[in-house]
Amino acid sequence: MILIKNALNLDGFRTSILIEGNKILKVQSDVAQELSPQATIIDASNMLAISGFFNAHTHAAMTIFRGYQDDLALQDWLNKIFKLEAAYVDETMVYWCSKLACLEMVSCGTTGFMDMYFFEDQVAKSALDVGLRVVIGEGLLSFQTPFCADFKEGLKKTFDLKEKYKDHPKAKVSFAPHSLYTVEKNDLELLSNTIDKNDFVQIHLAENLTEVNTVLSKFGQPPTFVLEEFGLLNSNTYLAHCVHLTDDEIELIQKRNAHVIHNPQSNMKLSSGISSVCKMIQKGVDVCLGTDGCASNNNLDMIEELRSAALLQKLFNPSYMNAKLAVRIAQNFGGFFDVALSEGKLADVVLIDLDAIEAIPLYNPASFLAYAANSKSVDTVIIDGKIIYKNKEFVDVDVQEVKFNVKKIAKKIGSL
Amino acid sequence: MILIKNALNLDGFRTSILIEGNKILKVQSDVAQELSPQATIIDASNMLAISGFFNAHTHAAMTIFRGYQDDLALQDWLNKIFKLEAAYVDETMVYWCSKLACLEMVSCGTTGFMDMYFFEDQVAKSALDVGLRVVIGEGLLSFQTPFCADFKEGLKKTFDLKEKYKDHPKAKVSFAPHSLYTVEKNDLELLSNTIDKNDFVQIHLAENLTEVNTVLSKFGQPPTFVLEEFGLLNSNTYLAHCVHLTDDEIELIQKRNAHVIHNPQSNMKLSSGISSVCKMIQKGVDVCLGTDGCASNNNLDMIEELRSAALLQKLFNPSYMNAKLAVRIAQNFGGFFDVALSEGKLADVVLIDLDAIEAIPLYNPASFLAYAANSKSVDTVIIDGKIIYKNKEFVDVDVQEVKFNVKKIAKKIGSL
Repeated sequence: MILIKNALNLDGFRTSILIEGNKILKVQSDVAQELSPQATIIDASNMLAISGFFNAHTHAAMTIFRGYQDDLALQDWLNKIFKLEAAYVDETMVYWCSKLACLEMVSCGTTGFMDMYFFEDQVAKSALDVGLRVVIGEGLLSFQTPFCADFKEGLKKTFDLKEKYKDHPKAKVSFAPHSLYTVEKNDLELLSNTIDKNDFVQIHLAENLTEVNTVLSKFGQPPTFVLEEFGLLNSNTYLAHCVHLTDDEIELIQKRNAHVIHNPQSNMKLSSGISSVCKMIQKGVDVCLGTDGCASNNNLDMIEELRSAALLQKLFNPSYMNAKLAVRIAQNFGGFFDVALSEGKLADVVLIDLDAIEAIPLYNPASFLAYAANSKSVDTVIIDGKIIYKNKEFVDVDVQEVKFNVKKIAKKIGSL
Repeated sequence: MILIKNALNLDGFRTSILIEGNKILKVQSDVAQELSPQATIIDASNMLAISGFFNAHTHAAMTIFRGYQDDLALQDWLNKIFKLEAAYVDETMVYWCSKLACLEMVSCGTTGFMDMYFFEDQVAKSALDVGLRVVIGEGLLSFQTPFCADFKEGLKKTFDLKEKYKDHPKAKVSFAPHSLYTVEKNDLELLSNTIDKNDFVQIHLAENLTEVNTVLSKFGQPPTFVLEEFGLLNSNTYLAHCVHLTDDEIELIQKRNAHVIHNPQSNMKLSSGISSVCKMIQKGVDVCLGTDGCASNNNLDMIEELRSAALLQKLFNPSYMNAKLAVRIAQNFGGFFDVALSEGKLADVVLIDLDAIEAIPLYNPASFLAYAANSKSVDTVIIDGKIIYKNKEFVDVDVQEVKFNVKKIAKKIGSL
């Protein structure tokens, strides 16, 4: 049992949180210490307690390419990255680089993430070794890669992963067709005929205008309608980026209860554009937030990401994406895990230091988090009822070992 | 003497830096320790050494209003802020709140700033007490404020400040007409006739469209041409924001060698827009970077600001505002102080920890700084040859005293 005493919550009230096992047993203003004599007590009187962040779209292992190639638009950048991947990606690389990514995510208050890459079993292993929740997705492409002969083999790998992580409390498996410009019609059909409606699907969609035009000429209709045609648009579909959607597409996404994942920093960095997420939220679409991979961001900091989300939308309207809404999309687990700061929910709790210079003064905790805080204020991270990070240090991970192994791999690529 | 040994520089080379007095004596790859037996040695083999940042437009004391009022456009926000200021601004408040701002700036790698507010003598005092370089400017308005009877009195205050800080090595004084919508024609004339061409002038210009329209109907021409008409546009003029300039205005600014200060985060937060700074730089305009005040940002972090500057410009073009250029505008002291990481220059040196998770791998130091680093990596800050901040702690400032005093003032306003 863990008792977090006297924290401030996002509404500005004092609150105590009692955690039993992996769940929140009580949230109230007066949890008496006597009620939980065996509990580990955390004095949080100078802390803000929030529910953990869910990084809903990333490619954790791509941390190995952080800063290798910047200042390019999406297609030019992808061409460079594909070559690097062919040369350097293997199981060992994916394990260690994803593990470094997991350390970065936890240290920024993230308690779960959705990933799309290769050797995704290693991504799950790294996440679970660090303690994070994870949704993996083996990247499915219609052409041969150094890691996979074809779409069919990728599908088989995904089914093997599904079997392996069946009923796992912290890991889930999704089908991950990379995009409509890298997957052919017959493979979309194959996917559609092979999976059932309880299966999760994640895909890059309408990320930039070049992609949309490619899809239009290849399929004769806008990307969202292509997914609809192949029966791949439902409440278990997760659409990353969605920068260039028509109003009809937004309406369809809402009707099908599919989820949109917003990636504001990557969308700027690769010159993709600004997604109209406020419009989507207003129309009832479920919106999550993600950092994308480190090769196009170049970090995995959800506090920075939610700030970018809020600030960018103000270019359209100063009020709609307010501090609370920006925090809310960053905490949206997209239905994968029942995480929240309330009784009976899974216990992913992040404590943020209010003694930091940038936390003074403090009129409104949500405003502090959205517009002033940074990851150096993240003090404690509890995931699934377990303390993973405390006093700004990892409790149980050999951080030096992870850094050492990533540096060894990066040196071959040219890291200083 | 200080010897910084074996740091990485922004170009990816190992370098040692010998500081004598307030200047850099030597920058080379092999400064032998024997040459400087009395020097304080800093082993920087796991550090990036950069020249300090100059926060070219801020209102340090407004830190007291951080997070009090968000999610509004400029004019609505200003109306709220003016009321708060009337009630809470005095000398004591300006001293302590500016001092907290100075602590935040140093901890983010800033070594100098330009300020515009009231009771600017206290801003200078707080900056010099912490150790920062500062350019102050008593806000000049054509209407009465609780702090100043009229424009004339503001002018007199500025002349007094000029006399007080005459030849000061770290503090300079500017004339600070607030904007063309708060200053009347006769006062612009008065200013123009009173100052000489060596005097510095800072002003908010073309921040949003409402302002531009107000100026057009009040003066009959666009803002930059108004300054030109009154003889207030020259190489000592500093123009904050400049979000809505015509091409003719940009050309005129370039011809007069005036300086533009870019404030990307504040311009987003107040729904002002995106400034075309790349176009300005391409046309030869000198561009500096600033955070604006904490009431509209809501922090003073120049690493975050330069990242926003780079990412936002990529919405127009992915390549032009590359990592190095973004860092360069953040380090632009606008001619006020001769700071740089080279021999004979003023010694403002910032060391950034390369053992941070987000610094791994490291292919390109400028990319790391622009796209991945955050202020938790700032390890050491040297200003004017003096170590102000070391191992992420202030060497010589009573930080608790500053926090205590700001919290006391903020409590009256409603801080939690």
